[in-house]
Amino acid sequence: MTGMKVVHIGFLGCGNVGSGVWRLLESFGKDIQHRTDLSFHVKKVLVRDINKSRGIAFPEGVLTRKVEDVLEDPEISIVVEFLGGEEPAFTWLHRALESGKTVITANKVAFALHWHTLQKTAKEHASGLYYEAAVCGAIPIIHALEDSLQANRIDKIFGIVNGTTNYILTRMSKNNESYDDVLCEAQRLGLAEPDPAADVEGLDAAYKLSILASLAFHGRVPFENIYVEGITGIQAEDVRCGLELGYTLKLLAIAKRDGMSVETRVHPTFIRCDHPLANVSGSFNAVYLKGHACQEMMFLGRGAGDMPTASAIVSDLVRAASAQKHLYPTFDNEPIPAVALKKNMDWSCPYYIRLLAKDTPGVLSQIAKAFADQGVSIAAMQQKGGQRDGRVPLVFITHSAHEKAMQQAIHGIPREIATMESMIRVEEE
Amino acid sequence: MTGMKVVHIGFLGCGNVGSGVWRLLESFGKDIQHRTDLSFHVKKVLVRDINKSRGIAFPEGVLTRKVEDVLEDPEISIVVEFLGGEEPAFTWLHRALESGKTVITANKVAFALHWHTLQKTAKEHASGLYYEAAVCGAIPIIHALEDSLQANRIDKIFGIVNGTTNYILTRMSKNNESYDDVLCEAQRLGLAEPDPAADVEGLDAAYKLSILASLAFHGRVPFENIYVEGITGIQAEDVRCGLELGYTLKLLAIAKRDGMSVETRVHPTFIRCDHPLANVSGSFNAVYLKGHACQEMMFLGRGAGDMPTASAIVSDLVRAASAQKHLYPTFDNEPIPAVALKKNMDWSCPYYIRLLAKDTPGVLSQIAKAFADQGVSIAAMQQKGGQRDGRVPLVFITHSAHEKAMQQAIHGIPREIATMESMIRVEEE
Repeated sequence: MTGMKVVHIGFLGCGNVGSGVWRLLESFGKDIQHRTDLSFHVKKVLVRDINKSRGIAFPEGVLTRKVEDVLEDPEISIVVEFLGGEEPAFTWLHRALESGKTVITANKVAFALHWHTLQKTAKEHASGLYYEAAVCGAIPIIHALEDSLQANRIDKIFGIVNGTTNYILTRMSKNNESYDDVLCEAQRLGLAEPDPAADVEGLDAAYKLSILASLAFHGRVPFENIYVEGITGIQAEDVRCGLELGYTLKLLAIAKRDGMSVETRVHPTFIRCDHPLANVSGSFNAVYLKGHACQEMMFLGRGAGDMPTASAIVSDLVRAASAQKHLYPTFDNEPIPAVALKKNMDWSCPYYIRLLAKDTPGVLSQIAKAFADQGVSIAAMQQKGGQRDGRVPLVFITHSAHEKAMQQAIHGIPREIATMESMIRVEEE
Repeated sequence: MTGMKVVHIGFLGCGNVGSGVWRLLESFGKDIQHRTDLSFHVKKVLVRDINKSRGIAFPEGVLTRKVEDVLEDPEISIVVEFLGGEEPAFTWLHRALESGKTVITANKVAFALHWHTLQKTAKEHASGLYYEAAVCGAIPIIHALEDSLQANRIDKIFGIVNGTTNYILTRMSKNNESYDDVLCEAQRLGLAEPDPAADVEGLDAAYKLSILASLAFHGRVPFENIYVEGITGIQAEDVRCGLELGYTLKLLAIAKRDGMSVETRVHPTFIRCDHPLANVSGSFNAVYLKGHACQEMMFLGRGAGDMPTASAIVSDLVRAASAQKHLYPTFDNEPIPAVALKKNMDWSCPYYIRLLAKDTPGVLSQIAKAFADQGVSIAAMQQKGGQRDGRVPLVFITHSAHEKAMQQAIHGIPREIATMESMIRVEEE
């Protein structure tokens, strides 16, 4: 047993998450010290406005408006970043790593975009780089992939990693409400941003999938390589039809490995109602995965929020300060990844298709032929609801088909016979 | 960066889990070495029969029948135990710790019964004590409680921690089969032991709950303090009635803290069908918990099986070998726990009650009076099915009531009026 060690920390920013970390260190500092012999001391906190009330009695001299007070203080060994966004976060984190400081961040954007550079710099200077809070808030999925499941070949990850869209889809499922109505309500409740694009168009989920897939497959999966489709086009009618067929609609972040070949995509997806992910409702996040040794697992929790995020940051603080040396994920043969990234649309899955078809004999046979011509095989068909303007809604579930074959099949149906209303991908497992 | 470090390991026993660990180290040893600079070398493996085929080409001299070859080899720094059961496992683990060796075990019985002694010895000799695999196989719930969630006050744990009973209850739910039929089938499939008592009577779940609750509440919760009731008395009729009312039946391991007061119990429990635990089916395990910062979380996975358990053991191996120093859970004020353990039956919850009542006017009023006399308030009542021999089945759901009040209320109903067929506790959250 060595004696107590004081660890000096600097905060970059101090919003609600930062205040949460401060409070957790106040409440649990003694317990942590008792167990680890580490005493955490927040020495400097960079803020824009020193006089703003934060509900915390910061000791004299802790708050500063100069970033150098954090980055150039040799006593500060760990820098925790709460700024969010690409810049100036990336530049400051990079400077901290260059001077041998360990960095802890909850910033998925700066991290996903600049991971390669940050890790390279961290390795060169033996600095630590910790980012548990950047993906899924309190859920320890980063640590699970890097530590608990390290003796696994991970074959598959399905994530519900964006709380806003999961809240919207859950409401649409439970109350048969329209997308627009639920989005308005979510904005009113503060569950969606005034400009919701990053969430509802799937970008936030893609940043997180980029991080999860890279760790799981030991090969960099850049954000730009991920196919992304949001939930803005989802119609209440499809959510309801899916439920009647036994499927729940989720914005799923999907990463699969087949041998050396990796596919990654974010899009609205039907999953079976008895799948563990189907009951993940409201603003919860969850990550479901399959490894060759651990088999199927799921981690569920609060993917955002001040205290859940602060909880993850404190665990990173203790890990960073008690590490014998900092470990980094291995990306073999960088910059050439150990895995090959599939091109967009190069995947197969079952499909849910809703068509509006002419209500005359022979139409179904023509549609079935257009499917068969592309090798797409139909698993189920149902007429949903009655005739409108001479057309009836037909819902198809196909067997697994290649995305391009499916799109060509739809293309091959003459418009005077039927028009496509919706096409939603399905994951059957 | 320091150079490579060879870590010599000894195995006590080598059944399927041990062989799994050997194989994972063969497959992932290089990756682990690349990332951590640690090279694991299994130097000695204690077995009963050296000539038994294990499908592994052990190098000459690795297999031994003498426990001293493992315990007294000064080069071996980590001992991994695969024996199971209380003895000789406890004695050998204790000897290993005394000689400064780190111990990794998947043995929940020896560990739950002798944790106090093992940890005391480990601390005295600065030996490591790791037991991720002892609870819920591949699910990293021990590490989550000790590490990822360390800055949380945990208020509640609900666990489905026994795969055999969850398999049986899932089959009873889905197919309306009887307990006896499903148990026979589970035994035939190897999912239940020939003597299933430890599983179906809830003891296995109680061992695991003892470990989880102690870690979560930072106070020792001995196995003997846990109220235990198994699933042997469960009738298909109650599983069906519950489903009709929106509840799924699970053998739940429950630990709650209210201030300093802790209650722990294992018994069949109705939970709402939309609770994340309700979809945990078949032989899966899951732990649901609530912390003041992380809020609600759930960890789901394979709670048993050779490779899931081996996956957890390899993660413990890397943690143990890369730790700057070994950490131990804090139990404040040992041997007096920091939390007060409630006496058996000192809890409140809603109840599901099925009675067979005389089919005459005035009977319901008499039953309601017996409930009211003990302060038990009825939330819902339904007659389920028709008259048999002049009696009808009545199902009640009560509001939250104290266990003793509930039992006295049942007692207060005259036998000529109604007899109790089933009483099942409910968790409403």
